[in-house]
Amino acid sequence: MKYSEMKLQESTIRKHSIPSKNDLIIAHERINRYINYTPVLHSSTLNQKLGCSVYFKCENFQKMGAFKMRGASNCLLKMNQNDLSKGVATHSSGNFAQAVALIAKMTNTEAHIVMPSNAPKVKKNSTIGYGANVIDCKPTLKDRELTLKKVINNTGAQPMHPYNDISVIEGNATAAIELLEEIPKIDSIITPVGGGGLVAGTCLAAHYFSNAKVYGAEPMGADDAYRSFKKGEIIPMENPNTIADGLRTSLGEIGFEIMKEHLEDIFTVSESEIISAMKWVWQKMKIIIEPSSAVPLAGLIKNHNQFKGKSVGIIISGGNVDLGNLPF
Amino acid sequence: MKYSEMKLQESTIRKHSIPSKNDLIIAHERINRYINYTPVLHSSTLNQKLGCSVYFKCENFQKMGAFKMRGASNCLLKMNQNDLSKGVATHSSGNFAQAVALIAKMTNTEAHIVMPSNAPKVKKNSTIGYGANVIDCKPTLKDRELTLKKVINNTGAQPMHPYNDISVIEGNATAAIELLEEIPKIDSIITPVGGGGLVAGTCLAAHYFSNAKVYGAEPMGADDAYRSFKKGEIIPMENPNTIADGLRTSLGEIGFEIMKEHLEDIFTVSESEIISAMKWVWQKMKIIIEPSSAVPLAGLIKNHNQFKGKSVGIIISGGNVDLGNLPF
Repeated sequence: MKYSEMKLQESTIRKHSIPSKNDLIIAHERINRYINYTPVLHSSTLNQKLGCSVYFKCENFQKMGAFKMRGASNCLLKMNQNDLSKGVATHSSGNFAQAVALIAKMTNTEAHIVMPSNAPKVKKNSTIGYGANVIDCKPTLKDRELTLKKVINNTGAQPMHPYNDISVIEGNATAAIELLEEIPKIDSIITPVGGGGLVAGTCLAAHYFSNAKVYGAEPMGADDAYRSFKKGEIIPMENPNTIADGLRTSLGEIGFEIMKEHLEDIFTVSESEIISAMKWVWQKMKIIIEPSSAVPLAGLIKNHNQFKGKSVGIIISGGNVDLGNLPF
Repeated sequence: MKYSEMKLQESTIRKHSIPSKNDLIIAHERINRYINYTPVLHSSTLNQKLGCSVYFKCENFQKMGAFKMRGASNCLLKMNQNDLSKGVATHSSGNFAQAVALIAKMTNTEAHIVMPSNAPKVKKNSTIGYGANVIDCKPTLKDRELTLKKVINNTGAQPMHPYNDISVIEGNATAAIELLEEIPKIDSIITPVGGGGLVAGTCLAAHYFSNAKVYGAEPMGADDAYRSFKKGEIIPMENPNTIADGLRTSLGEIGFEIMKEHLEDIFTVSESEIISAMKWVWQKMKIIIEPSSAVPLAGLIKNHNQFKGKSVGIIISGGNVDLGNLPF
């Protein structure tokens, strides 16, 4: 399938193709041996401070350091061997690149990753380290898509989309499934919102496996999901401006359909609230989380009055940071 | 007891007063509800790289962020109520200050902590935050001891020594007890060596609860334990020069007696080996460890040929770092 055709097909996906409970269970079984069952951590200091019980599902301890491994794995493992014979391809500047490269390596599949010239060197090196064929392009969405198109035409590789894909959303859902399995009393879950793939998967998991309400959290400087959710239609993000590099993308259609049906609310937070929450986690919990992962905690701290006495799950989306470029 | 008397008493302690297996079991029961049962983490990437299985006992997740909580708790909890009525006192620029302050708070005991004027602000604030009475002094050992003496004379508080104390060593031993309980196949354990309280406790735990051999690891810039161990007598550390701030102290007599009997060897590592191991753990394992905690891993990496096929435990001693002053 061509990348352009994939886009066409995506826009025809509506509620009837949303994964069932059984689809999620099968996805979890499918990816199980390729991923880490990540730990759930808590802090009594934080719980006392906020007046609720907070449970962190630590996807920073996931293979390659982010939840993206779940979606990428499910997506690739669902493809048939014939389709995979010519490899897979995607464009990404960050965690999805590494996730595709790693699951491709684990399954002896060729991976072609288009990466913009301004992608962090550490992420590029890591993607190459997993054995992927990295193709440089200019740092514009247009050139990324154009280069990917060329790669797909030349190689016949299968395209993989980082979030606007049912299989990726199914895979992402498994983080919340594990969280709810371990802490069944959880009544609220907060996730960051970028392209919407994680929050959508979490919505489905909460819907099928609990009575928990799901909330999104977004930087004010990239609040397209907040505005889209309030308006009921997608408003693309122009000129995002946030330290939370994983959340600068615009919302995908499939995730948005799921959010409209299942999401309770979206919180927005400032840059200083993100940095302060991130620093708190580093200093007090001694775990390394990336700025995007601090966004839900910042949202909870800001709105903690409405969570008094509740059991709140937070998906820590990842821990891939450039140690040479920290905000504190 | 006066601080000077305590020193006198210490020098009379010899093998016959070394804790029994039962002493360690009782110590563990004594402190159990005041400490965290910390997780054991591993990295398949590291295991592949080194050709052995490495298990990290993560005391950076301990209450107040370091194993010191174990020794301080056991020491304070062993004192009788009468002795405690006038509080406890110690001098420390770092983790022991926070540990004493926290266990004192948890047991409604007054704590007087003498801290040098150059102690990290974050540690001083944290000690005050736990409710301790912090007394400033000049940044010399002489003034620290003199000020502590005055405090003890004025208040009647019980002195607590950070490492040269049987009760502290018993408490420290419980980290290795938990590690061996969780991973019984461990055949080697490496710990950092500063004052010797952690390595001594680990030696006793390994001796009573396993057949594991214990190794110490030390910065070349503070290698008094290495030189003392080789010579068979304590050579005090003069002008230590290392980023591993927890390991700058000189070896205590009690720990040294235990090390002479039970320790297999001591590895020394350079500053760049410490920083490189620390950075690796931050980047790949996504946990925050302090420089002292990277020393055993640096020692293992340097000497990995002698651990091929083995199951190696590493005690990650703590995770209290100044985020504004990182070595990378």
